Amino acid sequence: MKAKVFVTLKPGVLDPQGKAIEHALGGLGFDGVNEVRQGKVIELDLAAEDEAKAESEVEAMCRKLLANTVIENYRIEIEA
Amino acid sequence: MKAKVFVTLKPGVLDPQGKAIEHALGGLGFDGVNEVRQGKVIELDLAAEDEAKAESEVEAMCRKLLANTVIENYRIEIEA
Repeated sequence: MKAKVFVTLKPGVLDPQGKAIEHALGGLGFDGVNEVRQGKVIELDLAAEDEAKAESEVEAMCRKLLANTVIENYRIEIEA
Repeated sequence: MKAKVFVTLKPGVLDPQGKAIEHALGGLGFDGVNEVRQGKVIELDLAAEDEAKAESEVEAMCRKLLANTVIENYRIEIEA
C-alpha cells in the first residue's frame, strides 16, 4: 500500500526557500507570481494491507518524525 | 489563482534523503516500510486569472527553474 505525506510550513512561518524561488522566477521574467511556498512530499511504500491501519501508522510517523508540528502542517493520502 | 507543483525524483535515481527517512523510521520501530522517496511541493500564488494561461506559465517555470528534468518528474495542479 502506498501513502503520500505532504508537509507544508504553517501560514506565518518564514519560508526563505520559497522566497528564493520567488526571486529567481522574477529574475527569469515571470512577473505574475505573488507568493511561493515550498514544502515536502514523502512517498511511502508500506507493507500494511489495511487502509485504516496504514493511515494510523503514517499518522504516528508524522507526529514522531516526518513533520515538525510546531511549524509544519501535514496531510496524509493513502492509495490502495 | 493557486498552483501546486509536485517534483519527484525519477524512478531509479538514488534518493539518499528518502533512505535516511527509511532508516530513521526503522529505528523508531516502524517495521512495515518497504521504501521511502522524498520530493518537493511548490505552492504558487499567481496573478493570472485564466486557468489555461496559468498552467502554461507554470509549465514553463518547471522546465526553466523548478524541476531538473534530467532526474526529476513534475506534476502541476491548478486550483481555481
